[in-house]
Formats: sequence, structure tokens, C-alpha cells
Amino acid sequence: MKDFERVGIVGLGLIGGSIAKTIKKRNKEIKVYGFSRRRTTLTKAKRQNIIDLYFLNFEKLLRSSEFLILCTPIDKIEYYFREIKKSNKKIIVTDVASVKEEIVKKGEEILGKKFPFIGSHPMTGSEKAGLDASSENLFEGKNVIITPTKYSEKDILKKIENFWEFLGSKTFLLSPSQHDKFVSLTSHLPHLIVFQFLKVISEKNGKLKNCIGTGFIDTTRIGKSNIEMWAEIFSLNRENILKAIEKFQKEIEKTKKFIEKGEKSKIIKEFEKGKKWREKIE
Amino acid sequence: MKDFERVGIVGLGLIGGSIAKTIKKRNKEIKVYGFSRRRTTLTKAKRQNIIDLYFLNFEKLLRSSEFLILCTPIDKIEYYFREIKKSNKKIIVTDVASVKEEIVKKGEEILGKKFPFIGSHPMTGSEKAGLDASSENLFEGKNVIITPTKYSEKDILKKIENFWEFLGSKTFLLSPSQHDKFVSLTSHLPHLIVFQFLKVISEKNGKLKNCIGTGFIDTTRIGKSNIEMWAEIFSLNRENILKAIEKFQKEIEKTKKFIEKGEKSKIIKEFEKGKKWREKIE
Repeated sequence: MKDFERVGIVGLGLIGGSIAKTIKKRNKEIKVYGFSRRRTTLTKAKRQNIIDLYFLNFEKLLRSSEFLILCTPIDKIEYYFREIKKSNKKIIVTDVASVKEEIVKKGEEILGKKFPFIGSHPMTGSEKAGLDASSENLFEGKNVIITPTKYSEKDILKKIENFWEFLGSKTFLLSPSQHDKFVSLTSHLPHLIVFQFLKVISEKNGKLKNCIGTGFIDTTRIGKSNIEMWAEIFSLNRENILKAIEKFQKEIEKTKKFIEKGEKSKIIKEFEKGKKWREKIE
Repeated sequence: MKDFERVGIVGLGLIGGSIAKTIKKRNKEIKVYGFSRRRTTLTKAKRQNIIDLYFLNFEKLLRSSEFLILCTPIDKIEYYFREIKKSNKKIIVTDVASVKEEIVKKGEEILGKKFPFIGSHPMTGSEKAGLDASSENLFEGKNVIITPTKYSEKDILKKIENFWEFLGSKTFLLSPSQHDKFVSLTSHLPHLIVFQFLKVISEKNGKLKNCIGTGFIDTTRIGKSNIEMWAEIFSLNRENILKAIEKFQKEIEKTKKFIEKGEKSKIIKEFEKGKKWREKIE
């Protein structure tokens, strides 16, 4: 990756920390600059040589970097768009938020349509959060969706693709709205379902914990994720999520009738295709 | 484990095969006898020294064993109860089915209330099936629910508890109906939800596969399980499952309204308790 020699990362949590660690693992020559609202995170990252330098002033970070990755909580991204705008520096920017339509819209509104900002969404993560959970292997073999618009310049896009590939990921392009539709099904709906399921079960008799098996543990692991972040995602991508929920509700209602009547062959038929689809994935 | 020197296993799939392997790992002196409708499974198990002997005649298996474990598909258990009844041999019997009320009722009806049959349900498994997926570590540290009735004799119960503990499991007692209520929530509902979710997603544009992340893989792993078995479980435990589904539907409907209105703090409040409950588990 020869596009950037100085990468600025805003937010050194799971994703930001993992990006820093992976850059350093793959090419020690690239300078990684950190910015975070928590000074303790910055000093820890510096002490552990995850970053080369940290800045307490965002303007200085901007001036020192060639490429900026916003890895903050989603509701802070708009703030940084405004700070970038204020600085007047034309810097290549991406973010890692799980919703893209609203973020890209905000980016265009604040920075202008021709500003070299293109959104990204790495399809990787963990139910754990923070710098301590970050890893130099988080992106290895994982997909990253990049969401250019008609205003995005090809060479900027190419640089952002190269960057994620340099971290070990495969990149795919989708429009912001297509991205949000797809992830409402592949990621947002399953998180919602698992959170909701855990809500239901947590209200029951404690003895039921003895009846927890292997499948339960894997299935509900994502239920340990950051709820604040997810409430934000559900709100930002609400139209798609509501559609996904409604489709899911309709199907559950249908299956319930098969169960009521003990129609085993209909239950099997209902679930067969999904099982086969899943088997092809992994 | 000194209670049994000769254990008969009916059905050498994931669970039956794992029981055989674990016995042999822990005490080679105990004789393990296999019975299966598939002769190729029996010869393979014998060749791999997973069992000491196999029988093609069920009556002979019964006469040779001191303890019998029914590890067949659930809808075959009744057939074996009748075969045991016919033989007139008073042998200690357990099973491993995921539903207990119907099975224990059938057992009492066919074998008589005082027959030394007590149901078991090991809370372990895999989305994979068959002898090849079986393992000598499947029971290690896992819970096994045992479901005695008021007619069950203490010394028989003790022997069955000892047996599962010998395999490395922890045992817990529940009434058959309590068991079925609990697992409808801890196991049956999550399976149903995942199957249903996969049904919904499998009908969508194939490009959405690029948007699959780490969480998706873990969450939907149970969706690769045997659908025929699950259709049987959903039908046998239908009352409890329908209640669980309805509770889940009601809660989803409530959360949907919060999302519609973008009420983030209500979404957070809705899911917080379940997340904390889950964090305590593992």
C-alpha cells in the first residue's frame, strides 16, 4: 500500500485499534496517528506502540495526516465532518459505521459532494468493545463494503479499496442505500432478534439457566454487543429494519399455524431452503 | 462408574456415538453394545473400536445389556418402548430426546409407571449429525437434565445421574413438564427464530452474501441442524413453543414501535436487562 504514508484514526476502540494494529503489523513504515476523546486510550495506544503519535487537537491531526478514518460512535461522525469542514483541508476520509445512507448524506451536506469522503463498512467485529479487544487479525479475509456515490472520484475510491485490501480484507462496492438494505437483513435484523430473545428469556425463572446448551451460547453471543450503538443503528436505518422485522413477523405467524396444527411436513418445507442456503455459506 | 458393566446404545449418531466414545475413553472395561437400523454404521463403529459388539437383533441387545440408552430419532422411541415391553426384561432405560413430557408419558403408558425408565436430555450437541460428527468430549462440563416422575425409584435415578457424571457432565433434575417449558425458551425458540430468519434471508438477492459478518456466522450456525428432528420437537412441545413464540412476537411488536418513533432510550431500556443476563452466562 503506497497510497498513504500517514494515516489518522479517530477513535481507538475495537475497529480503530484493530486498524492501527494491522497497519503496524503489515508495514511499520506507515505512520499511524491517533485521536480520541479519552486521553488514557491515547497514552495506552502510544505505550503499546499501536500508534506513532497522538494528537489532542483535531486540527493538528488533520494537518499531519493524508488519510483519515472515522471510527467513532456513529452519533459523533457528524461532529467530525464539521471539524474537517472548518479546517478547510481536503483530506481523503472514510468511516466504518454500520449504516451508510444517513452518514454519506451528512458527509455530502457538510463537506460538499465533491469532497474526497467515501464511506466504508467492514463486515467484522466482536461483541467486545474498546482498544483492549482490538486485534491485528480482525480484517483478515473479511469483507469490507465501500459505498461510493455518483460524485466519488475513481482514484480516491481505488485508494480506499487498496487500503482495506492492504489490511487483508476483500472489498465490495454498493450504493449507500443498497448497503443499508442488505445489512438490515444480514446484520441488523439478527441483532434485533437476539436482543429481543434475551429480553424475553431474562425475565424467566433463573433455574432455566441449567437448560442452556452449546447452540444457545453461539446464537446469543452478539447479544452482548453495545446496546447504545445498536439503538443508534436501528434508529438510523429504521425504514429498512422495520421492513425486515415485518417480513420476519409475517413468516413467524405463518409457521406458528403449522406448529399449532402439528403440520410437520409444512414446517420442514418452510425451513429447508434457508438451511440449505446457510450450509453453502460455511 | 461401577453401576453398569454392559451398556447398550440404540442409535449411533452424534449423541449415541459420543456416549460410546466417552465411555471407552474413560473406562475401557465397560462393554459398549451398539444397535442401529443402519448396518454400515454398526460395522464402522465396531471397526473404529467405538463399540465392543453390535447386535442386529434388538432382543439380543436387551438380554446382553444392563443399561439401555435410546439415542434414536424421537419418533422412533415409542417403537423401542414397545420392543422392550415385549421382551419382558426389566432393564434400566434412559433416552436423550429434547422433549420429555410426551416421551415420559409414552414410557409410562407402554412400559408401566414402575418400569425403571427415566428420561434424560443432555444440553449439548452440534449442528452436525451422525457417527462421524460424534466426539469423546461432547459431554465434558455440559449439563444433563434428568426428568424423574413421582414413580421413579431413587436408586435408579442415582445410577442414571452417576452415569452422566461419569461422562463428564453435570446433572440437574426437573419434572418432564418443567423441562419442556424451560427448553422451549432456551433451545426450541432460538432454533425456530434462526430457521425463520434464514428462510427470510434466503429469498433475497444473492449479492447480500457479501454483507455477512462474523456475528451472522455464529448466530445462525444452529440453522444447519436437522430440520426433520426440529419439526418433530416443535410438534411435540407445541404448547410451550407457541407460548414462547407469542411472548416473543408481543415484545417484537413493542420494540418495533420504539424504532418507528426513533425512541433510542426506550430501545436501550428494552434490551439492557437481557444483555446483562447474557453477560453473566459466559
